[in-house]
Amino acid sequence: MITISAFRWVPTFAQGQVRDLRARWALEEAGLAYQARLEFGAQEDPEYRALQPFGQVPILEEDGKVLFETGAIVLHIGARSEALLPNDLDARARATQWLIAALSSIEPHIMNVVAVELFFADQDWAKQRQPGAREFASRRLAALATALGDKPYLDGERFTAGDLMMTTVLRIVPDLVTDPRLVAYVERCTARLAFRRAYDAQMGDFSQAA
Amino acid sequence: MITISAFRWVPTFAQGQVRDLRARWALEEAGLAYQARLEFGAQEDPEYRALQPFGQVPILEEDGKVLFETGAIVLHIGARSEALLPNDLDARARATQWLIAALSSIEPHIMNVVAVELFFADQDWAKQRQPGAREFASRRLAALATALGDKPYLDGERFTAGDLMMTTVLRIVPDLVTDPRLVAYVERCTARLAFRRAYDAQMGDFSQAA
Repeated sequence: MITISAFRWVPTFAQGQVRDLRARWALEEAGLAYQARLEFGAQEDPEYRALQPFGQVPILEEDGKVLFETGAIVLHIGARSEALLPNDLDARARATQWLIAALSSIEPHIMNVVAVELFFADQDWAKQRQPGAREFASRRLAALATALGDKPYLDGERFTAGDLMMTTVLRIVPDLVTDPRLVAYVERCTARLAFRRAYDAQMGDFSQAA
Repeated sequence: MITISAFRWVPTFAQGQVRDLRARWALEEAGLAYQARLEFGAQEDPEYRALQPFGQVPILEEDGKVLFETGAIVLHIGARSEALLPNDLDARARATQWLIAALSSIEPHIMNVVAVELFFADQDWAKQRQPGAREFASRRLAALATALGDKPYLDGERFTAGDLMMTTVLRIVPDLVTDPRLVAYVERCTARLAFRRAYDAQMGDFSQAA
């Protein structure tokens, strides 16, 4: 049985955003059963840190093996299911390319907006930096919208692990996503039954704890 | 023949840092021949943007196919060579985990230090943010040093694509890397013949252009 670590509770703004959503969604797309391991204070818990060096959620545990980083978890699950990664090596490389683009070329700039607008919102430097951070992220998203064009998914007609990761990144600050093609793309991907099931499972765990 | 895009020239601080180094290094580890395609103004060139939506270097081209994002390029090359990705699926997942950790959990925080100390160094917000940015990155690196411990490589005795990516990330701001285990790790990885060949090839292209 696969286990995914998740938080028992997080503040409202983070509910439906915690990164275990990515692992849950991938498992739902692949049709693999899992259970959630609910953590209290993962970030500072030495026992959890021994499994995940940065204290981040989630880790995937299976048969005594541990894997972290949502990008690696989604690729690892994807290796078991064509619903996430095509068998064709070139198509697989392109799906991986979009997954990495989400993590490496989009998410850091969106997280910089979160930093100045949420985590450090009351600090003077953050107020000064806020317009510039938003502008940089918006430029990246405009380039992404151009790359998507009128295709339903980033690589064309078929949903892949790249779309899964990109969608979770685009959901972080919804009002940054203004291009109608990207708005429709996020709606298309989050309308998938696997996403709904993953989202409901994360939110359900929070409700149970409350 | 594989082609890697690279810049014809960059300012001194970026020489030996441009991301095509990662692709060149991976190709050298895998023993695959390649040629460099030297770009002038990739970031704003519409022709290049049609191949790489964010204008970033490098792209890998082969048989009319194009791949971008260094993480995806290194994994794609790694799929052809056990020198980068072990055949064993669990070991391969862990190598991928460290590659993604480099890109997703370490690099963004190091790039935030570069932003406040280099790109925006003269701005008031950057001066205020500088100590906090450095402290956050340092905490991540301390956690990484703990995870590495006394092992020669992140997953143990064997160099993988994860070490390749982590090393290139740790080279970005050398004075952030203070833990002796991490310092020795970077020295160990950059002493590899494949790294030296990749580094010399990038620097050689700059010399030719100058």
